[in-house]
Amino acid sequence: MKSPICTMLGIEFPLLGFSHCRDVVAAVTNAGGMGIFGAVNLPPDRLEEELAWIDAHVDGKPYGVDLIVPNRFEGKGTALDPERLLGAVPDTHKDFASEVLGRYGIDASSIESGRGEFLQFAENLTEEGAMASLKVAFKHPIKLIANALGIPPDYMLSMAKEHGVAVAALVGTKEHAIKQVEAGVDILVVAGGEAGGHCGEVSTMVLVPEVHEAIQPYGNVPILAAGGITTGRQMAAAMAMGASGAWCGSVWLTTAEAETSPVVKEKMLAAASRDTVRSKSRTGKPSRQLRSPWTEAWDQEGPVPLPMPLQALVSEPALQKIRDLSGGGHEGAMALDTYWVGQGVGLMNQAMSTGAVVQCFKEDFVAAFERLSNFLEMEG
Amino acid sequence: MKSPICTMLGIEFPLLGFSHCRDVVAAVTNAGGMGIFGAVNLPPDRLEEELAWIDAHVDGKPYGVDLIVPNRFEGKGTALDPERLLGAVPDTHKDFASEVLGRYGIDASSIESGRGEFLQFAENLTEEGAMASLKVAFKHPIKLIANALGIPPDYMLSMAKEHGVAVAALVGTKEHAIKQVEAGVDILVVAGGEAGGHCGEVSTMVLVPEVHEAIQPYGNVPILAAGGITTGRQMAAAMAMGASGAWCGSVWLTTAEAETSPVVKEKMLAAASRDTVRSKSRTGKPSRQLRSPWTEAWDQEGPVPLPMPLQALVSEPALQKIRDLSGGGHEGAMALDTYWVGQGVGLMNQAMSTGAVVQCFKEDFVAAFERLSNFLEMEG
Repeated sequence: MKSPICTMLGIEFPLLGFSHCRDVVAAVTNAGGMGIFGAVNLPPDRLEEELAWIDAHVDGKPYGVDLIVPNRFEGKGTALDPERLLGAVPDTHKDFASEVLGRYGIDASSIESGRGEFLQFAENLTEEGAMASLKVAFKHPIKLIANALGIPPDYMLSMAKEHGVAVAALVGTKEHAIKQVEAGVDILVVAGGEAGGHCGEVSTMVLVPEVHEAIQPYGNVPILAAGGITTGRQMAAAMAMGASGAWCGSVWLTTAEAETSPVVKEKMLAAASRDTVRSKSRTGKPSRQLRSPWTEAWDQEGPVPLPMPLQALVSEPALQKIRDLSGGGHEGAMALDTYWVGQGVGLMNQAMSTGAVVQCFKEDFVAAFERLSNFLEMEG
Repeated sequence: MKSPICTMLGIEFPLLGFSHCRDVVAAVTNAGGMGIFGAVNLPPDRLEEELAWIDAHVDGKPYGVDLIVPNRFEGKGTALDPERLLGAVPDTHKDFASEVLGRYGIDASSIESGRGEFLQFAENLTEEGAMASLKVAFKHPIKLIANALGIPPDYMLSMAKEHGVAVAALVGTKEHAIKQVEAGVDILVVAGGEAGGHCGEVSTMVLVPEVHEAIQPYGNVPILAAGGITTGRQMAAAMAMGASGAWCGSVWLTTAEAETSPVVKEKMLAAASRDTVRSKSRTGKPSRQLRSPWTEAWDQEGPVPLPMPLQALVSEPALQKIRDLSGGGHEGAMALDTYWVGQGVGLMNQAMSTGAVVQCFKEDFVAAFERLSNFLEMEG
């Protein structure tokens, strides 16, 4: 396809596939798109292992890495003090999480002793932690590095330039988009409020043309549309409005390659678009996820979520416990089980391979173009 | 354009323009789209007057009427009892409204005596009231009648059939869309959560393809996409995803013909997409509007909004007072002033005539198609 994204990244089809599963990343890349490995929860040695595996499975074809290097958080600029951080989590929040688990027949007493294992997310959010991840990433032949929250710091931009790697950044508002292009990012991932994971409030349908218009004075920074896109017709729609491609995360969660738990996979295949909720209860910032009694309890009766990364030290250990039991058929855990996903889950109704998803996107894109041609009575 | 909407309604360009201003309605129709007159706040004699004016200004070209005939509300099926309804508005709500006005230097003491003047909305929501409006509407050569909330009752569907008028219905979920086509509506207006006025939670980008897919088993009911659409590129995007046209309300509010107050017009032209809020504070159901200290006060510290139509008996008299003073340059009132508008307000940055807006849509639609053609390296 003739898109600046294809030219810049050396890919055939401007569909970027974000995933925490290396198999999905490799499969998207091998199908002609570009896989982006979500690395925020991994320590450097595990990241090294995953990227080496991807290198061995994509035969030199391009892929990327996604990190979170936020501008403001607990403990920024200092090395992580695990004791201090764990000590900063109030009992009100821990007790509420345990209480909700208890209602669903889950004994939460084992959680406290293992809470320290969930510090990696916080560790990676420190300058030191982010630098360690970046060093690993740039040792590999990546073609793109993305920052999922906020403006990439200078050291990230210069390391990328040095390695000839494109820098992408996720934005949810016009104002942030302008700041990002002023800071010098190469690609904007413009994510509507219907997106899974962290998201803003403005819809993809409005945000893509609004950002496209707003960044015109700053040169030709290409836009990848994100948020709710799980089909080729939506990708075509976004590109008709000014995007040069799409960035998708949710659509891979129900593929054969995804490590999504079987219970959540089934929930996603059955879900309509209304079955997601935008809530601060998982990370402390608004993120969209599958609605479950867990999210309902937090949103309706829970304490006000803590700032990032403290809230994750409450939610992640509890959700891990839920996931473990859910996998074993525990009914209460199966009810509570949830994961990040966008409103596009309403269009994900069939389990298929990652490669087949990419192929469906291509065919559906062309069909959408033909639909539009027919309205204008032109030859498709 | 070759769209089932054009064939069904006898129009050139499948852009439907909803407005409470007869001048906008006539201008959209005269520019090749179709104007839809929003009639919910008018008594039958005023509706008669407005439609007669439109008849005299469109030279036989097609236009439509939009009403609200909800399925559940205070006093349904009975004649309206003004005393009972006014008596059902609690002092907590009236006092809060007055208190907010007071903070902005507005004396609310005159409001109570005039509250009864705002009963027309409630009157029109009764079966008797709706029937009176329908009788007026069908005396005119309308080509479409729309129900803005809920499934059109049987008498509305049969009157329309008898007069050869297409029935449209607004939906915000897949489930409602299926119920509407089962009930026999001719056109679905699929409205995303970014829409101005009453709206759901699912975005246009997701809802349009989701509904398009869901109603396939029910035959070829054409879809008009609504919610956030204020440009031709967005209309093209929606039509690439399965819509046969677009239904827009917000985009006309800043036109020369619109009766929008000058203060609100200025606010809209300056607003970004984030400057709207979805709130129950105006009608009792979630509706999207320009954010102002009025909406902020209700959403952050106000009492829980009353059910429809009671909340409007609190909000509308206060907002009318605000509008009157705002027009005269009262600073507090200018700050509070607000009106319904969708997130697409972020793309409404230039005042122009209604006809020019329609022309912009046409040109931008073709440009969007060409943009898409270029990606596929096809001739546009």
